[in-house]
Amino acid sequence: MRKFLEPESVALIGVPRSTGVGAYNNLEILLRFGYQGEIYPVNPKAEEICGIRCFSSVLEIPKIVDLAVIAVGRDRVPAVFRDCCEKGIKRVVIISQGFADGDEKGKRLQEELTERAKEADVRIIGPNTMGVYNVHASFTTGFVEHYKPENPDPVCMVAQTGVYQVGTTVFSPNGFAKAIDLGNACDLDIVDVLEYLEDDPQTKVIAVHMEGIKRGRKFIEVARRVMRKKPVIILKTGRSTLGAKAALSHTGSLVGDIQVFDAAFKRAGVTKVRTNSELQDAIRAFLNFPPMKGNRITIISATGAIGIIATDACEDYGLELGPVPSGLAEKILKRLPEWIQLKNPIDIWPIGMISRRIPQVFEYALMEALDSEDIDAVAIIWVSLDSTLHTDINFHQIVERIQKKRNACKPVAFWFYGDNLHESVPRYEKIPGVACFPTIERAIRRLSYSYHYAQAKSEPEGERLEIEVDQNSVIDFVNSGRENKILLGEKAFSLLENFGIPVVSSGFVKSLDEALDVAHSLGYPVVCKVSSEQILHKTETKAVVLDIESDEELTGAYSRLDELLKNVSDQAGKILVQKQISGHELLLGLKRDPNFGMVVVCGQGGIYTEVYRDITQSIVPVSIKESHDMLESLQIYPILRGVRGRKGVDLNLLSDMICRMSALGEHASGLREADINPLIVNEDGCWAVDARFLWA
Amino acid sequence: MRKFLEPESVALIGVPRSTGVGAYNNLEILLRFGYQGEIYPVNPKAEEICGIRCFSSVLEIPKIVDLAVIAVGRDRVPAVFRDCCEKGIKRVVIISQGFADGDEKGKRLQEELTERAKEADVRIIGPNTMGVYNVHASFTTGFVEHYKPENPDPVCMVAQTGVYQVGTTVFSPNGFAKAIDLGNACDLDIVDVLEYLEDDPQTKVIAVHMEGIKRGRKFIEVARRVMRKKPVIILKTGRSTLGAKAALSHTGSLVGDIQVFDAAFKRAGVTKVRTNSELQDAIRAFLNFPPMKGNRITIISATGAIGIIATDACEDYGLELGPVPSGLAEKILKRLPEWIQLKNPIDIWPIGMISRRIPQVFEYALMEALDSEDIDAVAIIWVSLDSTLHTDINFHQIVERIQKKRNACKPVAFWFYGDNLHESVPRYEKIPGVACFPTIERAIRRLSYSYHYAQAKSEPEGERLEIEVDQNSVIDFVNSGRENKILLGEKAFSLLENFGIPVVSSGFVKSLDEALDVAHSLGYPVVCKVSSEQILHKTETKAVVLDIESDEELTGAYSRLDELLKNVSDQAGKILVQKQISGHELLLGLKRDPNFGMVVVCGQGGIYTEVYRDITQSIVPVSIKESHDMLESLQIYPILRGVRGRKGVDLNLLSDMICRMSALGEHASGLREADINPLIVNEDGCWAVDARFLWA
Repeated sequence: MRKFLEPESVALIGVPRSTGVGAYNNLEILLRFGYQGEIYPVNPKAEEICGIRCFSSVLEIPKIVDLAVIAVGRDRVPAVFRDCCEKGIKRVVIISQGFADGDEKGKRLQEELTERAKEADVRIIGPNTMGVYNVHASFTTGFVEHYKPENPDPVCMVAQTGVYQVGTTVFSPNGFAKAIDLGNACDLDIVDVLEYLEDDPQTKVIAVHMEGIKRGRKFIEVARRVMRKKPVIILKTGRSTLGAKAALSHTGSLVGDIQVFDAAFKRAGVTKVRTNSELQDAIRAFLNFPPMKGNRITIISATGAIGIIATDACEDYGLELGPVPSGLAEKILKRLPEWIQLKNPIDIWPIGMISRRIPQVFEYALMEALDSEDIDAVAIIWVSLDSTLHTDINFHQIVERIQKKRNACKPVAFWFYGDNLHESVPRYEKIPGVACFPTIERAIRRLSYSYHYAQAKSEPEGERLEIEVDQNSVIDFVNSGRENKILLGEKAFSLLENFGIPVVSSGFVKSLDEALDVAHSLGYPVVCKVSSEQILHKTETKAVVLDIESDEELTGAYSRLDELLKNVSDQAGKILVQKQISGHELLLGLKRDPNFGMVVVCGQGGIYTEVYRDITQSIVPVSIKESHDMLESLQIYPILRGVRGRKGVDLNLLSDMICRMSALGEHASGLREADINPLIVNEDGCWAVDARFLWA
Repeated sequence: MRKFLEPESVALIGVPRSTGVGAYNNLEILLRFGYQGEIYPVNPKAEEICGIRCFSSVLEIPKIVDLAVIAVGRDRVPAVFRDCCEKGIKRVVIISQGFADGDEKGKRLQEELTERAKEADVRIIGPNTMGVYNVHASFTTGFVEHYKPENPDPVCMVAQTGVYQVGTTVFSPNGFAKAIDLGNACDLDIVDVLEYLEDDPQTKVIAVHMEGIKRGRKFIEVARRVMRKKPVIILKTGRSTLGAKAALSHTGSLVGDIQVFDAAFKRAGVTKVRTNSELQDAIRAFLNFPPMKGNRITIISATGAIGIIATDACEDYGLELGPVPSGLAEKILKRLPEWIQLKNPIDIWPIGMISRRIPQVFEYALMEALDSEDIDAVAIIWVSLDSTLHTDINFHQIVERIQKKRNACKPVAFWFYGDNLHESVPRYEKIPGVACFPTIERAIRRLSYSYHYAQAKSEPEGERLEIEVDQNSVIDFVNSGRENKILLGEKAFSLLENFGIPVVSSGFVKSLDEALDVAHSLGYPVVCKVSSEQILHKTETKAVVLDIESDEELTGAYSRLDELLKNVSDQAGKILVQKQISGHELLLGLKRDPNFGMVVVCGQGGIYTEVYRDITQSIVPVSIKESHDMLESLQIYPILRGVRGRKGVDLNLLSDMICRMSALGEHASGLREADINPLIVNEDGCWAVDARFLWA
């Protein structure tokens, strides 16, 4: 991987003969970028380009270069790539487009390339990429010339687009030091890049733009390891397309894929951002701020109004307002009118105006906040004024002195308003631990990134529930399920019981007499249902009868359901008689996510499932702590916990059920989807009332 | 109001003797701002300040000035204000702090000022304000000197803070022309200012920062009228619990229920923003963009990746991707490889690179989109490059030519990335109908403001349901309710019936025999409840028995509830026997909002009310259209409408109920709160099952 970013020799295959405006000549651009390594252009129609000798084929180059860059029409790529393999080149960037990004044929071509690369032990970046960009090595494979920063930020941007290689200062104050465009990621992917960046001394912050992912689980494992050394920021795009896709099937509509990505990012401990502004915010936060130990901040403001806006933002981003340091009140208040109260946000202006000591008040407030053990960061709203009348409230020196004396151990986030911000802001940002933001909301948001990252970094690996399982019987059920594609009724219940998930008292019957026997042994009220592979949507087909209170009612219900069963001619079908239980209806299930594999789904069951989408997902295996986090993230959590005098349910039991379902997901190989719907939970326990397992 | 902003003469009371750095001398600042009117400083300790003769009291000034500005300690304000009244001055700005923003005493002082002002027919801005700022009149009452724009934007910023008078270019590209800080708004308020701005030719866009409001209903009426002439943008702060507390101490404002404010803003047709970035976005959108007729946009992009991000943003902000104009495909595609498909977003780069005609492709795409009847606006993602190699993709002239030829009748929103944006962006923004934004998400958001404003502007006044009411009997009920503070049971049901709201078949009984009679006439199953003013929370006290199926069960239930009634010794209490109805449980109610008066509340009832907060509110009177909008805004709307083969309920009937409840709110004078909980609705109709009315 390293040699992709700092090759000593490179072959550029498909360099255009023309140069200058409109040529997009990557050789010309590489030379202007100041690359010092050996360059071998390949173009059979040219003797030389930009004064450098051309080769008619990569095979003619007199050495095995570190890297080949292919930029020819897609139909010529396979032949050129074959030449590279033959020549023994081990790294190839394929700039060309029209592969999986194009049509079906392109998709096939791409698969063939990937195959060939594996055989020849060659690694590919691309196709459909700008390739790599490394200021430290003065190396770029791009075909667009842009700003080359002198002192770039120690950020590596990994993306599935070249955008971030062109507008680097848009995203990081001094531009990125490195950037990698993975394009279609037919071979090298985000996991490979993270593994390289983990120990790259030139990279302190990793920023990722992600459209899709192939090795989802490996990504979680590697990102979680890397995150403990340096922050990883991820912008996942394509939310809305995925949302639309998610609405397709029943469980699909509950469990939009983006929620699984979110679960994966949480497990990996990476910083998720939703927009490019958030990406900018996060990069700057990690470059300038020391980690925040807690979430308590002091807001120092030139204005009460914006203090209120900052307070709203704290709530939005999970930060708290810390107490006003007691020393501050003593220092400031004794010479002030009685109506002034010190609160957080600290509104400096009225205090300073009335005492005629604005700079001193500001200095006290900042020092006390930074020295207080109850405060983890400071957000400052201040005004930048050009007027010669207001040189007294230019606090640059004060802030610099205070932060340096304290080794900038806590972040100070500024929002400046007023005049000439493009001059004053960079001056303040040179102070260690200080960063300035275009609005106070964004200042607060960036502090929140520092806090949440520090939290994620120190989070221990989650403990898992130990579950004893009868392996042989599970294997039998799985084999039966794989064969039939589906597992229902008694078998489904037995599989659940194997994992310690309780099932409501039931009897599967074939005659009315049996039904009556079961009902008598359970005691009324009972529920009667059809159990048949032919009838999956029981509510729609009216294959469930509730509230059966007597033999007469059961007789009526039985005959109607038996009729239904006969209509679908299911010989294996049975009638299910169950004890009627009242309680809260939850949904507990598993689904196979294309990116991350087995996922546990838990949430509100019944008719509200679809409207409130009060569903939480986590990737198998789920730890005990994660299972509790899942429950707490549900909107119905207060009801489960117990509200307004009503008793709650046993949350440890529910956590247990989630962990058991997770274990089932690990053991049931090939399973595509499983549903317990509903899982009824009340003060006395919880029971699966209906269950179904589907194999692919 | 106008003379507040452009007075011909002004008295400055409490001008400090010192000038220069740290003095915050408002006279010095007014002179430097270039004010040409007459100035009368008042300071008993000075002969002259800044070369202008001082008066020892406002009474000594030889004329009645248009405006007095008071900036003395709060305890001296009442006396000074009295002098102003005595002198006959009709407009006063009170800069001083420590009133409702301070302590209880300050609150009282402020009330006294307001009283006196009314008596003397004097208008006040403030207290706790920077006052006014008007570039056109070179007039400011502020004590901070800042940038005075030469060609300010035709925006008036109305706020409860001075921040927006100091950082004006932060919020509007060329700064505000006018700004008014209402401070604690003890007299002049947002309504007065809107009435003035309605016909102010120097104001094209009105931006408002609001903490609280007093004349809520008048505000809706006036804002709705003004909005049809010019856009009104509102940033309401104090959304969070903490923020609300902070606002109370900042300007003494009661921030109120944010959902009711949202309902008010919707009714008024103003553009609501949540953050300062959104405020910036909205101002720029209204300054640069023509109105959008529909919500269909074309995205032209230099990169597929950002096209996806733009697509996500469209969904977030309620815009749609329009079709690709058919002419475009013809013009572009015929010379391209077969794998290239034209989609919206239109990814220009690969098409342009392969055809070697990037500028032409861009030009075609922009022209066709602007000329298409199916497209209402264009969003462009493009790169700004300094390199001499890329002058071909500087599209400034192309865009200018195209927009001018079409009179800029559709908005074009750019996101630029790359080099030297601070130079290229202003150049593009000079083109009519063009604006540039710091991210594509914000570009899309700003387009959405233009669209939503055009929608609101053309929205007709809503038609109301005509309801016949027996006025006399309503007056009787209301009088009885006011007397007892509460109306329950039979009377509550009768009041509902008076407004045409159906009540479930019920009987209020005093004996078991009566109960049995009622049950027999209704038919089992029935529900039995206690109806007593002493027992308001029936669920918690187990004062409800459901599912009563037989005389025996009713006998048991009756005796238990009768016991309960005896325990609270409520002679007037009765037992209520009701037909048991199954269906969807809604909540329908009224509450008196401190800012906007009577509000109709409707949403999910039962135990989920509190967890999902699936509640919608609208201010009385509610129009028929608004009642439907309320229902559609509920998350349970799909269930009400009918999902997955289940029949829905009669939505017109529910809309009707909302309108009837609204009418009840208009008639029931003094009512504080009313609840129908639940209102049960099923395929056959809807019925109030329990109701209660509270007076203050």
